Amino acid sequence: MSLTSFIEVSQDSHFPIQNLPYGIFSTTEKSEPRVGTAIGDQILDLSELAKAGLFKGIQGLEEAAKVFAQPTLNGFMELGRPVWKNTRAQLQKLLSANETQLRDNQELRAKAFVPQSSAKLYLPAQIGDYTDFYCSREHATNVGIMFRGKDNALQPNWLHIPVGYHGRASSVVVSGTDIVRPSGQRITPADKTKPIFAPSAKLDIELEVGWFVGTGNKLGSRIEVADAKDHIFGMVIMNDWSARDIQAWEYVPLGPFLGKNFGTTISPWIVTMDALEPFLVDGPSQASPEPLPYLKESKPSAYDVKLEVQLKPAESDKFQTVAKSNLKHMYWSVTQQLAHHTVNGCNMRAGDMCGTGTISGPAESEYGSFLELTWNGTKKVTLEDGVERVFLQDGDEVNLTGYCESTEGYRIGFGNCQGKILPCPYQ
Amino acid sequence: MSLTSFIEVSQDSHFPIQNLPYGIFSTTEKSEPRVGTAIGDQILDLSELAKAGLFKGIQGLEEAAKVFAQPTLNGFMELGRPVWKNTRAQLQKLLSANETQLRDNQELRAKAFVPQSSAKLYLPAQIGDYTDFYCSREHATNVGIMFRGKDNALQPNWLHIPVGYHGRASSVVVSGTDIVRPSGQRITPADKTKPIFAPSAKLDIELEVGWFVGTGNKLGSRIEVADAKDHIFGMVIMNDWSARDIQAWEYVPLGPFLGKNFGTTISPWIVTMDALEPFLVDGPSQASPEPLPYLKESKPSAYDVKLEVQLKPAESDKFQTVAKSNLKHMYWSVTQQLAHHTVNGCNMRAGDMCGTGTISGPAESEYGSFLELTWNGTKKVTLEDGVERVFLQDGDEVNLTGYCESTEGYRIGFGNCQGKILPCPYQ
Repeated sequence: MSLTSFIEVSQDSHFPIQNLPYGIFSTTEKSEPRVGTAIGDQILDLSELAKAGLFKGIQGLEEAAKVFAQPTLNGFMELGRPVWKNTRAQLQKLLSANETQLRDNQELRAKAFVPQSSAKLYLPAQIGDYTDFYCSREHATNVGIMFRGKDNALQPNWLHIPVGYHGRASSVVVSGTDIVRPSGQRITPADKTKPIFAPSAKLDIELEVGWFVGTGNKLGSRIEVADAKDHIFGMVIMNDWSARDIQAWEYVPLGPFLGKNFGTTISPWIVTMDALEPFLVDGPSQASPEPLPYLKESKPSAYDVKLEVQLKPAESDKFQTVAKSNLKHMYWSVTQQLAHHTVNGCNMRAGDMCGTGTISGPAESEYGSFLELTWNGTKKVTLEDGVERVFLQDGDEVNLTGYCESTEGYRIGFGNCQGKILPCPYQ
Repeated sequence: MSLTSFIEVSQDSHFPIQNLPYGIFSTTEKSEPRVGTAIGDQILDLSELAKAGLFKGIQGLEEAAKVFAQPTLNGFMELGRPVWKNTRAQLQKLLSANETQLRDNQELRAKAFVPQSSAKLYLPAQIGDYTDFYCSREHATNVGIMFRGKDNALQPNWLHIPVGYHGRASSVVVSGTDIVRPSGQRITPADKTKPIFAPSAKLDIELEVGWFVGTGNKLGSRIEVADAKDHIFGMVIMNDWSARDIQAWEYVPLGPFLGKNFGTTISPWIVTMDALEPFLVDGPSQASPEPLPYLKESKPSAYDVKLEVQLKPAESDKFQTVAKSNLKHMYWSVTQQLAHHTVNGCNMRAGDMCGTGTISGPAESEYGSFLELTWNGTKKVTLEDGVERVFLQDGDEVNLTGYCESTEGYRIGFGNCQGKILPCPYQ
């Protein structure tokens, strides 16, 4: 029989007792941001549990009251996977239907449970560095065909390395933060050598998954692919907003810059690798070419996470699905990404975040960006109510979401990754 | 007559009373890293001056004792340029030869002055994000000729935008930190499509200047080019170590990644924009093409800083000069870099660092990388004692340094930016 909680959790909730993602929240009554876990439509305040002594006996978590009173998860992340596992086990025990310790303590319950609807959510970690990969073969191929033609779609390195670049950490924001349309230089069909300066006319999204480093490595050392999962704290859904016109002009030869760093939105709850473990599946074949030894996986390393892009156009009042994809399509696994990132001795730190790159599936309905869905603006996306889009308009709202579906009927979900486009305030 | 200090400062010192750069240091006697300024061969401990009440009356610096006891300069940076200016004026006054307040207080002098030779120096700031630009026309042209031929040396965007990319903040280290030779994927002449995995055989340096953001901007807002200098705290010398073979294989289409993020070394003292002000000169002409309005400078915005690359090969015992350059050759100014970086609404924070990119001059003796000095390894650099190099060998030490020379005879210097190459410890 499936594990159940004394907290009521609806069938389609993203946050059953099998999930228990970590996040940072505050309330009107208590404005200090602190650590919580989501259960059903509630948040369980871990700083209150710690004060009540409910994490006693977990080795390495002796300072639970301090760790869970922090405004970021970095302190908890640094403690390492055995602590994460034992904390999760203790939370599952405390929340289970037949465990009385928390269930029957009305005083503690009154302090420790907060409705999600009344909480403010924050970035879950202080992100030191943010790296964005480019690991969906379908996405890289689509973009390659558009810009270089069918015969040169994938660059020669793509099947040998998880291609990545450094993104901007300062502009990573939590779901619900408005995004200002960026201005920048771009060329026009009239003159391809002389740029104009204007607000972006090709504002796009990228449907990605972000993953957080828990424990890092010293500069000059490496994390092996077989050990990589022990260093990863968990995952979020990520929208790497992109100004395609700015990006196209600036990106040679050093890569994307102002076309990306005006905003990157993530969902507030970090779903742990332990919660995702039951949803491991084989990823795409890596038989031809085989990866170099330092990148070879010996176990299934893809995750079956259903992903969805929803749009609420400025002229509408409801979100409508414009694409569905799945994380399992990703060619390079997150553990390969981490092994590659550190193979030269690059040091990772608790709270560093990496993105997978846009996760597109093989079908046209599975493309994770408007660039692909509209084939660089050459065709329109038409929504149920007749609204048409090529790229994003001011006032449009985007929501990215995703979940794993268990055979037992519960969902391990990521919640929402949402943002609204504001017009550029400058002339 | 030139301003002089009661602290003896030799003619060729980088740190006369006209400089007063800020850094973070500790001593054996007092191990807490704290804020100091360099004067001659001494460090003046600003946390001791603050405790003694010597910053009283500086508006905005009411918490001087707290700000200068921090292990980073971020707190001081956030206070803004009026505070930086007034603090600098007060330090110049306190250190001047005819001012008795500090000079004649033997007890305070014993606590507040520390020989540089006995201090440990740290990264001067917590670097949130690190951006590297590519602003030397000579460098970009040289690299372009080598990789794309004379006719396509500069990419079409180069004369319109300060091209930049996000670097890795976690691997920025302070002068004196050893650098481990990185391994990675690279191709060989035998097969240009199938990579091997090995330690880099083309380990290089980049002679750069780094500049620190003091006060930033909110996400969605901009910093105008005319206001940019007020947001910049100061400059350091920077060595952006580069593995050219790893970079060449990985950099399409998203830019440099593992070829750069194994280490970036900076000098420990941040020379303030106010100290550099007397050395402002006109930069290269920007008449053809003219920059777009948001990038136009109305005042001289280049700095006359003499730069030098010194190498101590593994088989030698002294540093020898291999190249000399000058920051004034840089095409895009630091203020243009900051205006461009924020024109899309990207937010900068106190302690963020930007690099100028390799500063090469027009003459061959002025190239700021071995890539250029050896024309991608096709010719050798021969040192005084007959030692030859194409790229760096294990055991080699590099020092980058620079200074402004005043007509009054003093130097505003940056000190040393030094690092030694250790062999890769992995097979």
